[in-house]
Amino acid sequence: MDWQNVLADRNGRMKASEIRELLKLLDQPDILSFAGGIPDPKLFPAQAYRDAMDAALTGPSAGAALQYSVSEGYKPLREWLAEHMASIGVPCAAENVFITSGSQQALDYLGKLMLNPEDTALVTWPTYMGALGAFNAYEPRYDRLDPKSNRPASAIADAAADAGGKVKFAYLSADFANPTGETLDRTGREALLDMADALDCAVIEDAAYQTLRYDGEPVPPILALELARKGGDLEACRTIYCGSFSKVLAPGLRVGWVVASKPVIARLVLMKQAADLHSPTLNQIATDHVARAIFEPHVAKLRATYSARRDAMLAALKRHMPDGVRWTKPEGGMFVWVTVPEGIDGADLLAQSLQTEKVAFVPGRAFFADGSNGNTLRLSFSCADEAMIEEGMKRLGRLLARVTQSATAVAAG
Amino acid sequence: MDWQNVLADRNGRMKASEIRELLKLLDQPDILSFAGGIPDPKLFPAQAYRDAMDAALTGPSAGAALQYSVSEGYKPLREWLAEHMASIGVPCAAENVFITSGSQQALDYLGKLMLNPEDTALVTWPTYMGALGAFNAYEPRYDRLDPKSNRPASAIADAAADAGGKVKFAYLSADFANPTGETLDRTGREALLDMADALDCAVIEDAAYQTLRYDGEPVPPILALELARKGGDLEACRTIYCGSFSKVLAPGLRVGWVVASKPVIARLVLMKQAADLHSPTLNQIATDHVARAIFEPHVAKLRATYSARRDAMLAALKRHMPDGVRWTKPEGGMFVWVTVPEGIDGADLLAQSLQTEKVAFVPGRAFFADGSNGNTLRLSFSCADEAMIEEGMKRLGRLLARVTQSATAVAAG
Repeated sequence: MDWQNVLADRNGRMKASEIRELLKLLDQPDILSFAGGIPDPKLFPAQAYRDAMDAALTGPSAGAALQYSVSEGYKPLREWLAEHMASIGVPCAAENVFITSGSQQALDYLGKLMLNPEDTALVTWPTYMGALGAFNAYEPRYDRLDPKSNRPASAIADAAADAGGKVKFAYLSADFANPTGETLDRTGREALLDMADALDCAVIEDAAYQTLRYDGEPVPPILALELARKGGDLEACRTIYCGSFSKVLAPGLRVGWVVASKPVIARLVLMKQAADLHSPTLNQIATDHVARAIFEPHVAKLRATYSARRDAMLAALKRHMPDGVRWTKPEGGMFVWVTVPEGIDGADLLAQSLQTEKVAFVPGRAFFADGSNGNTLRLSFSCADEAMIEEGMKRLGRLLARVTQSATAVAAG
Repeated sequence: MDWQNVLADRNGRMKASEIRELLKLLDQPDILSFAGGIPDPKLFPAQAYRDAMDAALTGPSAGAALQYSVSEGYKPLREWLAEHMASIGVPCAAENVFITSGSQQALDYLGKLMLNPEDTALVTWPTYMGALGAFNAYEPRYDRLDPKSNRPASAIADAAADAGGKVKFAYLSADFANPTGETLDRTGREALLDMADALDCAVIEDAAYQTLRYDGEPVPPILALELARKGGDLEACRTIYCGSFSKVLAPGLRVGWVVASKPVIARLVLMKQAADLHSPTLNQIATDHVARAIFEPHVAKLRATYSARRDAMLAALKRHMPDGVRWTKPEGGMFVWVTVPEGIDGADLLAQSLQTEKVAFVPGRAFFADGSNGNTLRLSFSCADEAMIEEGMKRLGRLLARVTQSATAVAAG
């Protein structure tokens, strides 16, 4: 069928999907999986959602809850979010808030809005693989974002120009990032803003995990730091903040948000009108209801549960990992990032692990825009109880001890 | 702010939004509006949705209902849709069904999948303005789709090649189209398939209103006719069928679907993974529940109510329109398309109507890819009761009588 050749045009742009296919295979009952980067479904506030749906679908309000609605999002939810943003150092108006179908959609739209083929997107090495998936559709070049390096902005700009485009944005998850669990400190955030000024590019702050801090000193959002520089004038800010209810309430309703200057919001609204009209009316109304009813106490409960799991994983790693294996010590979020000795590939390790130890994780290579750094892997502690974590890390440590030993033997021989 | 210039790149591609802004202004209490192309919220099955949400969010199933899910869509809903499609002449497997966030998203994805700048999209003159909005983001050239014209396919292909691209698809709403209310007959559908074969392009069948037939003989879906040509082999078909629950259940949950050959579905699934991961899990589960519980009787109720309104509008138009005004006689859907004498512009007419008669409609120009045919307007009868229709058409007729009289006087003078 010749006409189907046209479909191939856009196919090469998608990558993360291959990984997701792999991860699907891992959902087997006898596997101890630390692969999925998903919240624990036992912690979802189902009763609050049921109450919210009952309220929205009862009486005369039901018609509006089931009807088409405006592309920018449900006004009361935008108002609640403006208050929430103020509470984390980003005072803004409801008009600065745009509702998306999860923050994944925000990344897709921002790529669509800003990237032309050959433009450069700056991303951390590693970065969220779903961001690469979203941006890939618009065929950018990637360059490495490292706010703490000494590489001058002019060199980054020159490389982008040589490639035939411009640096359009720097994308990062600054708090308890997927996949590393690491947080960019205040100095790094200020350096990032300096660099964005020098490059005259946007900053996309992916804040999916920001609320899930378990200990350590909170670092202000990048947008809060930029606001302080701009005398509190959000309209003068280049940072685009992407938030999500997926990790703190529930992902199955697909509700996220963007906070940015009004011209950026206006363009996202036009884009959404053309792309899917609006996020589901009912989901926005229910989320507004649930957020107002339980947000703070619910997040406190999540923090208590997840931080105990984080502690269990760090302690188990310390107990069971052989020499030469390093890992991050996240202050929040859902992930620990493990670096194994060079020459060991995470994908090979996964294949062995599934066969011999029945432990699953995500090989690290998929999180690098250039597919480098194969000797890494991502562990998620969000869905595992302490006993499973202990057993899983014991098995993984056993495998790594075997593999590093034989790698050393090969190197010595 | 220089960096915001990059945002302008994509802005010129969006058009329908301007019209939507205008329509928002029309939602004022003293206006009799026939503008919005939306279902009557009083007819939404709110109780069925409440039951569905209660079931989904109670007990152990709640975790899965609120969790991330697969990009292709909720399996039981895809299975119900496969049965539904068989009942309208398109037997298919659940694997041929892909769930979208409303059929608007299907149009966006199909544009993204197939259109490169300078490619040609064939659309009817007029067409659904939201389709133009979705496709515009990918910068196609438009050419006129008219299956009953004598223009040879080779001329269409040559014009596309001259413009620097290829004809990628023909897009149409074949049943009770938005905005005309008209239906393409079987001969026209067969001619369309011949033309698509000659052009080796896809056919996008937008079936948003297909279920809402009030009288006349049903015409098989284009995909059913192509299936018959291909011996029932859906994998050999070039037609991509886009369905929606928005007009027959409720639009506020944003649930639509695509039926196509598996390679097309596979590419849409990859695209959705990158763009928004999946449509809301809960919405798909609830829609499955509601569709299984009430689809047939509910649609029967909608047909009875809407057909009475259609009858009222056609009768009122006959009573009140002056000579020189023509309109379509739809056998289903929500719209009547009115053509006024040349030289009268629908947008001017709307401005006058809002001032003097307080009646709203959509000026027709926005539905034409080239902005031609200003002497047209779209009336929707879906949200108006018989009394409002009678009063609205009386006022509109009065206005048109004045306007055509003075136009004739100017022409004679």
